[in-house]
Amino acid sequence: MKTTFGPQRMLFPLPTVLVVTGNMTKANIITIAWITMHTGKSPTLGIAVGTRGYSGEQIRANMNFTVNIATVDIMKEADFCGITSGREVDKFKATGFTKLPSTYIESPIIKECPVNLECRLVESNMVGPTNHFVGEILETHIDTDHLGDQHDPGTLDIRAVNPLIYYSGVREYWSLGEKVGDAYEIGKGLTISGHHSR
Amino acid sequence: MKTTFGPQRMLFPLPTVLVVTGNMTKANIITIAWITMHTGKSPTLGIAVGTRGYSGEQIRANMNFTVNIATVDIMKEADFCGITSGREVDKFKATGFTKLPSTYIESPIIKECPVNLECRLVESNMVGPTNHFVGEILETHIDTDHLGDQHDPGTLDIRAVNPLIYYSGVREYWSLGEKVGDAYEIGKGLTISGHHSR
Repeated sequence: MKTTFGPQRMLFPLPTVLVVTGNMTKANIITIAWITMHTGKSPTLGIAVGTRGYSGEQIRANMNFTVNIATVDIMKEADFCGITSGREVDKFKATGFTKLPSTYIESPIIKECPVNLECRLVESNMVGPTNHFVGEILETHIDTDHLGDQHDPGTLDIRAVNPLIYYSGVREYWSLGEKVGDAYEIGKGLTISGHHSR
Repeated sequence: MKTTFGPQRMLFPLPTVLVVTGNMTKANIITIAWITMHTGKSPTLGIAVGTRGYSGEQIRANMNFTVNIATVDIMKEADFCGITSGREVDKFKATGFTKLPSTYIESPIIKECPVNLECRLVESNMVGPTNHFVGEILETHIDTDHLGDQHDPGTLDIRAVNPLIYYSGVREYWSLGEKVGDAYEIGKGLTISGHHSR
């Protein structure tokens, strides 16, 4: 049995990322779950950012931002960055996060996040009252201590990373569970005749 | 220590949804992890869809689609829908999924998915070579057996739902772990003076 509830934001679970804007002297952090990849080759991603906030202002001014994957270890700091404004608070100071310089852009990355993506703004669209900023990923930084093979980003130990997951329906943070299958593989077990075994 | 790896698609973890297009007679299903909310009031979401696929063709023709949350129970079927083309396979027949009519649009919903969102296409943009379709969420269907309170979508038991999570970096499916905190709450424990306790 299904019941209807009208228009709801029941998309879950979502990643939790920290978007950093500005520069090494004056930077801001916002917490975002509304983010998506757009393209895989010459990879781009998009983020939803309110038009009136300090981060949106900095992105429009500087044309770049970094995306930093949040983890359960920094949940309190990540949440803090989502409920405070960069106009009133120096969030790097308040959280104790460490700024590291990016390779190609002004916006710094966060040392305490295990994966950091440098993004150059390539499109700025409005969807309703909200900005949708599209960034081209120029560089990827990964903590070496979570890599099985120091030369292969595919060996990142996601269990050790322990990414912070956002369950938007009820405003809760969750951890990741267990690996349950290989994508692009497990579906091959289904025949296309309409018969299959589980 | 961090190492750089150039432009990578290291955004994780992501939700796994099944997007249904077409109508009750002829419908298609694609599996998507590249999805984001755009706006919360008059909620909208956006999905990345290849320009040459059958689903993109149906969305452009019919101007609507549904988003159906995939679960670990239907992992094999979900993966199958991501590695086959609707031009060659009737994916409802192949997976055994049950089509249910939507309330407001032609595209059906999938009975086996615990949450279903009916979306009306309101924008179609290109990001690089990929379509980004923005849909206004018109209706939300939720399985009543996972609701604590039949009148409150916020009481959905996400542990019972067991949503399928996609870890794009290594093409793996994962399950959800444990609740670790309340969003918009746990960050209040940080002072804005720069001192905080963990």
